Amino acid sequence: MCVGLDSDITKIPKHLLQEVDPVFSFNKAIIDATRDLCVSYKINTAFYEALGVKGWETMEKTVKYIGDQHFTIADAKRGDIGNTSTQYAKAFFEALPFDSITVAPYMGADSVQPFLEYEGKWAIVLGLTSNKGAADFEMKKLVAAEGQSSNYLFEQVLTTVSGWGTPSNLMFVVGATQAEAFVAIRKITPDHFYLVPGVGAQGGSLKEISEKAMIKNDVGLLVNVSRAIIYASDKEDFADEARKVAKEYQSEMSTYLG
Amino acid sequence: MCVGLDSDITKIPKHLLQEVDPVFSFNKAIIDATRDLCVSYKINTAFYEALGVKGWETMEKTVKYIGDQHFTIADAKRGDIGNTSTQYAKAFFEALPFDSITVAPYMGADSVQPFLEYEGKWAIVLGLTSNKGAADFEMKKLVAAEGQSSNYLFEQVLTTVSGWGTPSNLMFVVGATQAEAFVAIRKITPDHFYLVPGVGAQGGSLKEISEKAMIKNDVGLLVNVSRAIIYASDKEDFADEARKVAKEYQSEMSTYLG
Repeated sequence: MCVGLDSDITKIPKHLLQEVDPVFSFNKAIIDATRDLCVSYKINTAFYEALGVKGWETMEKTVKYIGDQHFTIADAKRGDIGNTSTQYAKAFFEALPFDSITVAPYMGADSVQPFLEYEGKWAIVLGLTSNKGAADFEMKKLVAAEGQSSNYLFEQVLTTVSGWGTPSNLMFVVGATQAEAFVAIRKITPDHFYLVPGVGAQGGSLKEISEKAMIKNDVGLLVNVSRAIIYASDKEDFADEARKVAKEYQSEMSTYLG
Repeated sequence: MCVGLDSDITKIPKHLLQEVDPVFSFNKAIIDATRDLCVSYKINTAFYEALGVKGWETMEKTVKYIGDQHFTIADAKRGDIGNTSTQYAKAFFEALPFDSITVAPYMGADSVQPFLEYEGKWAIVLGLTSNKGAADFEMKKLVAAEGQSSNYLFEQVLTTVSGWGTPSNLMFVVGATQAEAFVAIRKITPDHFYLVPGVGAQGGSLKEISEKAMIKNDVGLLVNVSRAIIYASDKEDFADEARKVAKEYQSEMSTYLG
């Protein structure tokens, strides 16, 4: 389980607004309440950037507070021409100590490769996302190469991008709302981990994705829950309530892990 | 002409490194030297994020220093599920006073639309980019709908995305290195402005793109030059040299504008 820190200053409990850094106080409490229940934290950079310089400071404090015992994800959806992606890699792997970053594949090889050049760091490339807009381009069919069958853009992304890295430095985003596609996806990239958002507020089923996409012995799934956990309560008990919901997810996951 | 502030602290003149904020000092000098020669400045967010919190501060100071007389572009390549893109729009249109932002289209409608909801602001969506990686996905052929001819992914992006906005809140990125595709592109989106990077360091021809993609009376092209201008010299005369190069580009552009 990964806990998603999509921490929105307009949604956190009101009593925190008197703190010097309300979002950091919120994150700290959520992290303290869930540390033993998850293996990873995902920071959605947009919610921090929306607060300007102060938000970027909060992001830095948060990733440092998480520390070395959890796998940290900058959910930043970056990607640009090679020399620019190199700067994004510096931003999230050097200036900030994240273990991984989500990357948009549209611009191709040189936009992804700079993230793969860091020892011990990971690029998590968008495959099939959890949102409605996934139908617009990701699920368009491509003309097949001779002798091959036609496939969707997201399948081509998985096939092509998996050639640029290894299961040790490359993961893919596959939305939990896309469970019916998981069997086919697991055939294309049998050995890669998937970051699976969309459980909880977005309605994806944990059971279905576990049945369809788990790898024997190695799991291969990092399931993210954000809003359902962090906004379990907007009262003073928010951290306790977050822990309860996190525990429910973790128990359900344990049954599928067997 | 748009001047691209891809200001890299390892490439700016060494004597600036003793300043409190070397990158801001550099940007200020470049802006002062080119204000009357361009209509727009493009800030490549990656180079600022690579410096962490301090870089984000420099970005804020720079966009404010540019002021209201130029069209400002956050070249940020953002895009995520709807509620997250809304936060990115807040980051660049409210927390920072940019006029526009570049957006990656992979995740579809709900990832782009939040940027189109701001009165007087612009989304600049990636169409066909200037880099080698453009061949990996952007130039893949899609299976045609019945009765239509098959087209490239980037053509589908132009067609679909142009339905989400108007020429008054939506532009597209088309790389200058893709001049041979410009005639076909202009047919798909006849009335939209294109942000055209790739002139200068990346080798795109100003003449070719002007001949192939200009709109009568309305130009329709915002041609960006970054490295060729801002790194014209790495000595104390860097601003004067930047102005000279900017003036050359501007003169060349004037001849095509007639």
